[in-house]
Amino acid sequence: MKSFNKRLQEIQQQRNSLVCVGLDVDPAKFPASIRNLENAVIEFNKRIIEATQDLVCAYKPNLAFYEALGERGMFALRETLKIIPGSIITIGDAKRGDIGSTAERYAVSLFDDFGFDAVTVNPYMGSDSVEPFLKNPGKGIFLLALTSNPGSKDFQRLKIGAMPLYEKIVRKAKQWNTADNIGLVVGATHPKELKRVRAIVPDMPILLPGIGKQGGDLKSAIRYGCSEDGYGAVINASRSILYASSGDDFAEAARAETLRMRDEINGLRAVNCE
Amino acid sequence: MKSFNKRLQEIQQQRNSLVCVGLDVDPAKFPASIRNLENAVIEFNKRIIEATQDLVCAYKPNLAFYEALGERGMFALRETLKIIPGSIITIGDAKRGDIGSTAERYAVSLFDDFGFDAVTVNPYMGSDSVEPFLKNPGKGIFLLALTSNPGSKDFQRLKIGAMPLYEKIVRKAKQWNTADNIGLVVGATHPKELKRVRAIVPDMPILLPGIGKQGGDLKSAIRYGCSEDGYGAVINASRSILYASSGDDFAEAARAETLRMRDEINGLRAVNCE
Repeated sequence: MKSFNKRLQEIQQQRNSLVCVGLDVDPAKFPASIRNLENAVIEFNKRIIEATQDLVCAYKPNLAFYEALGERGMFALRETLKIIPGSIITIGDAKRGDIGSTAERYAVSLFDDFGFDAVTVNPYMGSDSVEPFLKNPGKGIFLLALTSNPGSKDFQRLKIGAMPLYEKIVRKAKQWNTADNIGLVVGATHPKELKRVRAIVPDMPILLPGIGKQGGDLKSAIRYGCSEDGYGAVINASRSILYASSGDDFAEAARAETLRMRDEINGLRAVNCE
Repeated sequence: MKSFNKRLQEIQQQRNSLVCVGLDVDPAKFPASIRNLENAVIEFNKRIIEATQDLVCAYKPNLAFYEALGERGMFALRETLKIIPGSIITIGDAKRGDIGSTAERYAVSLFDDFGFDAVTVNPYMGSDSVEPFLKNPGKGIFLLALTSNPGSKDFQRLKIGAMPLYEKIVRKAKQWNTADNIGLVVGATHPKELKRVRAIVPDMPILLPGIGKQGGDLKSAIRYGCSEDGYGAVINASRSILYASSGDDFAEAARAETLRMRDEINGLRAVNCE
């Protein structure tokens, strides 16, 4: 079976795109014509996916946004996953983490029941909280290392001797990656640290949130986030794409923004490779 | 409005119990007469709750076990929460943690939609990932400090100077606890560290998993986990109560085990207070 990391790399190459669209749905931001539909979330996602699917390597629904909508939200998430073509990676942004026997249940839910290709995992509880997500080499995880938010300074940057905690996690992840199905999450808001992480794990995928509304810099995300082959960085944008327009042209606006972002990224990759 | 921590303390006093039953449902372990019912999980929980409700201060469903059962599981969780009397604390063991705008959605889901009184939260992403759960003083969180599982050694015990990471988190939690609605999770498998945590936060509630199947010691959990007033420790048991019998007498067996545990705890508390 092909490992998750290998499959991600092939999809990025075939599609010539590092763009991941974060499907963080917020009905309050939908145009009125969509918001008032019975299945507003499904319809919104369908339009976004139809408009952007040839431009991306991955979609990343954040589970919180669906859970907050109750049963209807979870139904919409299931339906959304059916709409995404099998040739595109789906990342369940769930940031789960629990003792082994419980983590196993989360893996069943996210991989077997929902059918995500990969999930984000919180490392705080250690090895037995991560292992159940690694059993199937075809399914992957992105382990939180240095997240994009201001609170990342509270614990992730604390120094263990000379080494910040997030680097300890990066090194553990490297050690655990025997089935080639672990990637990392590093916020695009931390370019210097991203460079350091990439030096430690030259070939692991890195999911980079924080571009767009959070202020992360795309240029350094590409410069330091990509592997030597020019792939391996998964550049996520959510709000800046989904809500590029608040009008009925939201899908066209989302396409234009995704296209702009993909091409800007590919331009920056070309410069890197010179 | 009464703070969550105050309410928990009053409920523990009124009910004279520190026992929390972890509703970690596993249909494969249900007796055949229940397992084959259409609403097996709801029926199982209903029987457990009816048999134990006068003996506990809290119920703690772990969301992973319901999520793994798909839509049926989430429905069963909603129905289970309706069955639990309002005079008993409900803890959503979800271990969520995400950037502020996302954590807000998890808070909506767990507090407003499901209606939990408290939730477990993973601290790794720092202050803005925790704050959205603290806005309503009547709702509480238990922040993961030192968890009961073997993997807790991987990161939680790493030393920041002379201080282990989990103690840094305990001290931050103390600082964040301005609305009196933060508690901690410390595994009963770590008695020495529990003693140290209790010395730092004399009055904060501590949720203690790890008794029973995981091998935690009840005597030291009570000795070191309780506040000076003899309350404040929430002693969780899941599998040892739910599956005390695999036969049709499972509810009676669960009651007997809960009663035994409550009385053993109260006996140990009495010794503490001498």
